[in-house]
Amino acid sequence: MSIQPIKWKNNRLYLLDQTIIPEKEVYIECKTYQDAARAIKQLVVRGAPAVGITAAMGIAVGAQAIADRGPRHFLAQFDKICEHMAATRPTAVNLFWAIERMKGVVNNEGNLSVSVLKKRLQDEARKILEEDIEGNRRIGEFGHHFFWDGCTVLTHCNAGALATGGYGTALGVVRAAHEHNKRIRVIADETRPFLQGARLTAWELKKDGIPVTVITDNMAGAMMQHGQIDAVIVGADRIAANGDVANKIGTYSVALLAKTHKVPFYVAAPVSTIDFTAKTGKEIPIEKRSDKEITHIGGKRIVPRGVSVWHPAFDVTPNAYLSAIITDRGVAARPYRRNLKKLISY
Amino acid sequence: MSIQPIKWKNNRLYLLDQTIIPEKEVYIECKTYQDAARAIKQLVVRGAPAVGITAAMGIAVGAQAIADRGPRHFLAQFDKICEHMAATRPTAVNLFWAIERMKGVVNNEGNLSVSVLKKRLQDEARKILEEDIEGNRRIGEFGHHFFWDGCTVLTHCNAGALATGGYGTALGVVRAAHEHNKRIRVIADETRPFLQGARLTAWELKKDGIPVTVITDNMAGAMMQHGQIDAVIVGADRIAANGDVANKIGTYSVALLAKTHKVPFYVAAPVSTIDFTAKTGKEIPIEKRSDKEITHIGGKRIVPRGVSVWHPAFDVTPNAYLSAIITDRGVAARPYRRNLKKLISY
Repeated sequence: MSIQPIKWKNNRLYLLDQTIIPEKEVYIECKTYQDAARAIKQLVVRGAPAVGITAAMGIAVGAQAIADRGPRHFLAQFDKICEHMAATRPTAVNLFWAIERMKGVVNNEGNLSVSVLKKRLQDEARKILEEDIEGNRRIGEFGHHFFWDGCTVLTHCNAGALATGGYGTALGVVRAAHEHNKRIRVIADETRPFLQGARLTAWELKKDGIPVTVITDNMAGAMMQHGQIDAVIVGADRIAANGDVANKIGTYSVALLAKTHKVPFYVAAPVSTIDFTAKTGKEIPIEKRSDKEITHIGGKRIVPRGVSVWHPAFDVTPNAYLSAIITDRGVAARPYRRNLKKLISY
Repeated sequence: MSIQPIKWKNNRLYLLDQTIIPEKEVYIECKTYQDAARAIKQLVVRGAPAVGITAAMGIAVGAQAIADRGPRHFLAQFDKICEHMAATRPTAVNLFWAIERMKGVVNNEGNLSVSVLKKRLQDEARKILEEDIEGNRRIGEFGHHFFWDGCTVLTHCNAGALATGGYGTALGVVRAAHEHNKRIRVIADETRPFLQGARLTAWELKKDGIPVTVITDNMAGAMMQHGQIDAVIVGADRIAANGDVANKIGTYSVALLAKTHKVPFYVAAPVSTIDFTAKTGKEIPIEKRSDKEITHIGGKRIVPRGVSVWHPAFDVTPNAYLSAIITDRGVAARPYRRNLKKLISY
C-alpha cells in the first residue's frame, strides 16, 4: 500500500501527522478549515505540493460547513476561508496556486446552487490530489533517465510521498528509477531543524525498500570530497521565472558543494511550483519560522536562554547551480527563462 | 571569573561536564586515569587542546596511583597508562603531543625516585594547562587584528574556553577583539550532531557578554548570500604540514561557502596542533563515531530503526581555502608548508 499523507474519505479530511513520524503513524482529522490551516502552519503536513492539496481540501471542508443563506453569503464566507488558508505559509507557491484553482470553481460556476458548488469544490480538491500523484509519476518518468543502475543520490529535506499527494517529486524520481530496476541508494541530509530527512525521507524510503543512509547536513561536503555522491536531487517550494529555486534552508549549500565537485544537481517539481510573476529568486518571500524550532529539540532546550537565533525556513539557489529542472511537463535546462515558459505553452 | 573546563585542585582532576551544558554546570572528578580516558571518549571534555591537557592530567592521576615497587614497575605501568590514553580519540593531534610531553618527563629524568617522578608529572600536566592558556592569549593578540569594530564572525563547533585550558583559540581571537573594545558579533553554527555551537559556544560567549546568534549548520550559506558574515574563524584538531586542516565535520562546507562569497576564512590553533609528519590532510586519520549520536537526540530516536547512518567526526579543509592560520607563535599564510615550519624554527 502506497503512502498517503492526505486522505479524503467519506467527505472527511485526514492528515498523517508528520511531526511525530517515525515514532508514531497517526492520522488526524481536520474537522474545520481552521484545523487544516493549523495543520499546515504546524507542519503536520508540509512540502509544497502537499500544502497545496491540503489547502484545497481544507477549503472544501470549510465550504461544506457554510450555512445555506444564499450565494452572496456563501461567496463572502468562501473568500474568508481562502484568505485564512493563504495566510498559513508564504513561500510555497503551490498553496496560492491551489487556492486559485478552488476560487476558479466558484467564479466560473457562479450560477450554481450553493449545494452544487459545495460538491464541485470537493470534486476539485480531490482532482488536485489525483492530478498531483499523476504529475509526480510523470516527473519520475522524465527524471529517472538521469540516474543509472548503482548510483548514489543525495537529497535534502523530504520531497517524497509525504511532501505530495503520495509519490513524491525528488523521491518520485528515485522511486521511478527503483521501479525500473535500477539499484539506487539515497543519502538523506537530516535537514535541521525539523529533521525531514532523518525522520521522513528515511521512513518512506525504508518502507519502499530503497536503501537510505542518513547524515547530518554538515557531512554532505565530506561525502562529495570522497566521491561518494553521484547526483543530487531536491524538490522546490517556489521556482522563479528565471529558474532560481526556493527550497528548504540548506539547499543552496548543497548546490554549491555539488557544483564544486562536478556533481549534477537536479530540481524536481510540478509546473505549479513555478511562479512566473517572480522574475528572479529575489522576489520570492522567505518564511521566517519560530525560534523554538531551533532552540529546542524534542521539547528540550539546547540553546542557552537569552541567546538569539535566526530561522529562515528556505533559501534560494541561483539557476546557475542547476543541471536541470524536472517537471510533470518535461525537463527544462538553461536558459531557464525561455525553457520554463515553453513547458506551459503546449 | 573565567571559564575553567579543566581544574587541578588539591592534586585532583575535575572536568566540567560538557555533555549537559547549558542545562547544568557540573564538575565531575576523574579519580583514575580510566575516568579521564572515558571522559575524553564520551565528550565530557572535547576540543583538541582540552583533550591534550586532560590526557596529561589523566596520566598524572594514573601515575600517582602506581604502587611504589621500583622504577621498572613504574615505567611499565606508566607506559600502559599512556597507551590507554592514546587510544581515546584518533584525530586531535594535541592528545599525542601531550602524551609525548608527559613521556619526556619520565625519559629525561630517569634517575629520579618514583615519588619525585610522580610530582614532576603533576607539575608538567599543570604546566601544559598554564601554557595553553598563555598560548591562547597570544593567538588572540596575533589574531584580533583581522577583526574590526562592528564585524560579524561566523564560527563552527566550539573552539573556545571549553575546548582549551580556558580562553579559546578561535573564540580566544573573538575575546581578544572584544577586550580591545571592538564590537564583535558571533554567528554560531549549531554543529550537529553534538551541538557544540548551540550549546557550548553560545553558553560561553553569553557568559562573557559577547553577542551571539545560533543558526543551524545549513543556514550559513543563506547568511553569506545576504552579506551578513564578514569573516569565519574556526579551530583545528590537526593541521598537516601543508596547511590542510582537520576540524569538526562541516568545516569544509563553511570554508567553501566562504571562498565563494569572498569571506576570509581563518584557522586559530596552537602550533601543537600542527602535525609535521602528515604531509597533507589525506594522512590525517578521521574518527568515526557512534551511530547513536546521529540517530538519537536527547535520548529520543529520530532516525527510523534499521536505517543506516554515516558519522565521521571531522573533515579536512584543503589549504587553498584558508586565508591564514593564527597560532601562538604568529600568523602563517601561504605557502603553508614553508611558513608553518618557520613558526617553530625560532
